[in-house]
Amino acid sequence: MSSHEFYMQLALNNAKAMKGQTDPNPLVGSVIVNDNRIVGIGTHLKAGEPHAEIHAIRMAGEKAKGGTIYVTLEPCSHHGRTGPCAVAIVEAGIKKAVIAALDPNPLVSGRGVQILKDAGIEVEAGILQEQSQEMNEVFNKFIVEKTPFVTLKSGITLDGKIASHTNNSKWITSPEARNDVHKLRNENQAILVGVNTVIHDDPELTTRIPNGRNPLRIIMDSTLKIPLHSKVVTDNQADTWVFTSENHDHQKKVQLEEHGVKVFIAGESRVSPKEVLRVLGDNLISSLLIEGGGSINAAFLENKLVDKAVFYMAPKLIGGQTSPSFFGGKGIELMADAIRLENMKVTQIGPDFKFTSYPKYE
Amino acid sequence: MSSHEFYMQLALNNAKAMKGQTDPNPLVGSVIVNDNRIVGIGTHLKAGEPHAEIHAIRMAGEKAKGGTIYVTLEPCSHHGRTGPCAVAIVEAGIKKAVIAALDPNPLVSGRGVQILKDAGIEVEAGILQEQSQEMNEVFNKFIVEKTPFVTLKSGITLDGKIASHTNNSKWITSPEARNDVHKLRNENQAILVGVNTVIHDDPELTTRIPNGRNPLRIIMDSTLKIPLHSKVVTDNQADTWVFTSENHDHQKKVQLEEHGVKVFIAGESRVSPKEVLRVLGDNLISSLLIEGGGSINAAFLENKLVDKAVFYMAPKLIGGQTSPSFFGGKGIELMADAIRLENMKVTQIGPDFKFTSYPKYE
Repeated sequence: MSSHEFYMQLALNNAKAMKGQTDPNPLVGSVIVNDNRIVGIGTHLKAGEPHAEIHAIRMAGEKAKGGTIYVTLEPCSHHGRTGPCAVAIVEAGIKKAVIAALDPNPLVSGRGVQILKDAGIEVEAGILQEQSQEMNEVFNKFIVEKTPFVTLKSGITLDGKIASHTNNSKWITSPEARNDVHKLRNENQAILVGVNTVIHDDPELTTRIPNGRNPLRIIMDSTLKIPLHSKVVTDNQADTWVFTSENHDHQKKVQLEEHGVKVFIAGESRVSPKEVLRVLGDNLISSLLIEGGGSINAAFLENKLVDKAVFYMAPKLIGGQTSPSFFGGKGIELMADAIRLENMKVTQIGPDFKFTSYPKYE
Repeated sequence: MSSHEFYMQLALNNAKAMKGQTDPNPLVGSVIVNDNRIVGIGTHLKAGEPHAEIHAIRMAGEKAKGGTIYVTLEPCSHHGRTGPCAVAIVEAGIKKAVIAALDPNPLVSGRGVQILKDAGIEVEAGILQEQSQEMNEVFNKFIVEKTPFVTLKSGITLDGKIASHTNNSKWITSPEARNDVHKLRNENQAILVGVNTVIHDDPELTTRIPNGRNPLRIIMDSTLKIPLHSKVVTDNQADTWVFTSENHDHQKKVQLEEHGVKVFIAGESRVSPKEVLRVLGDNLISSLLIEGGGSINAAFLENKLVDKAVFYMAPKLIGGQTSPSFFGGKGIELMADAIRLENMKVTQIGPDFKFTSYPKYE
């Protein structure tokens, strides 16, 4: 590890420690080094408070002068509460800036670097860039596309099934894996299932870990056949939004609204997944976790809308020509056009395997 | 690593190097140590030639006296070409014997140890036992059950599919993974597919690696609809045996036999997988590789006949409710009764993952 990587890793580690408390801002960390000594560290703590670089510059004080600043994201060029960070770096007398990733917003990307360079500061970008981008993957998508970053999660057998041919599914994965799912729920602002999951399992869709935050519950339901006594309708543990088509039961809509459930029309005869994401984006929901059955998963995968896939794979086989796979629907026609899963990471959780990857579509 | 493990590992490594050249005998290695120095090594090279212990004792000569012998399998107690190894160890004046695994044959297991103990030799068994047993897993099953050790191999997508809904399957896995399959073919005496695979793919089922040995080709075909122009019927690259039911096309049987294909009746209206294994065992076939489609795989898995499973999993998704999974058939009814895959090992082969495991049935 070069010394550049050493200092940047420290900045990344501090940034990651703030996960969940900076929304809607990204995670950013910074380190200032002068004469081979760390003279300041900073991290963005909370939206509305100073950026990482400002904290680091304040801590360094006079020792910032002539130093090198490491920052996990390109310093901003816009006037926020504390002025543009790039200008603050110039004013602090910093000599060199090492940056992990440029600003993901194409409208401003590179502007911070330009301010630094114009002031005669040496700039090196791209150090541990991938880590920085992954850490802010939700923010990076939302800032550009204004729709949520979509994570699909499924607990499956090694043969890709989510139930037996008799629809028995309890349990596929281990308690350890099921506990890990609650961390995913905690990290996502909203969770989505199909109405059949509500009818079949009557889930709470809450986050059952200490200090867990419950996501907003999204149900896709073309005709509004959701039972009024479902937990997601009655338990008041989190808000529930139901997306339906124009072809819905109008009386049921009124009844749901009386229970405090918001109902959105998104599609003529079926709910359009793309339209669901658009509405969520308009409501500033930047992250969505899909825990659907085979049809819901297929609807999002076939429409190329899944950004990240997390599979908990149990080392077992259930088999059966008719037993449901996690990716149902029609599927893709040619093997050459299969969805590729990139940057696959495999870890073991209890007896199960967790596969994390990024779908790439043809 | 203890010194016991160090010497036993050396014996195991030498034994494994003989893979494929000792059939129908097991792989066995031996090391003799005296006064902290290795004074002899031996390994079984070929059926009909001396056992590992005899080679090691000969190499050690006088220095075997008072030494410790390491042997990966319990020394034999029966009179072969070179007399019982247990007696040879006693006669060489060995003081202590360290054994990895006892003889798998319940009829003679423990007898070799008894001869040693009766002669006052100290015996320690179980050192690196699992490695020794895995190395001889084929032999260990065949010697006891007289039916072949069955390995099921399948190349699958991460959603467990072997083709798209249009039956497109070229290619699921990478060239690296497909090359690894040829090593599996080389290690197995016979390979089995269903007639639909022959009709659809017209495969050669040969081993395409340098010095590869072609396995005996087994086709399961209830009615004898196998085309007479299939490569497995006409190419003479290896023997082909077809298993059919009593409900077969009698004229086709004669035609196949004219092509040199052996035809076996094994079942009334459908071919019984259990009967296939019995016939293969009677013909001293000790290892069978199944490269079936969904139905053939299901027939063997549902009948609890698969000893080892090897999956090459490509990091891709093809989806589809009707696209075939590698484990078709009816499947298992309850998730609690799913086939557990034990001792799972995951390695990466090119872009794909190779899962090796041992099915455990409820």
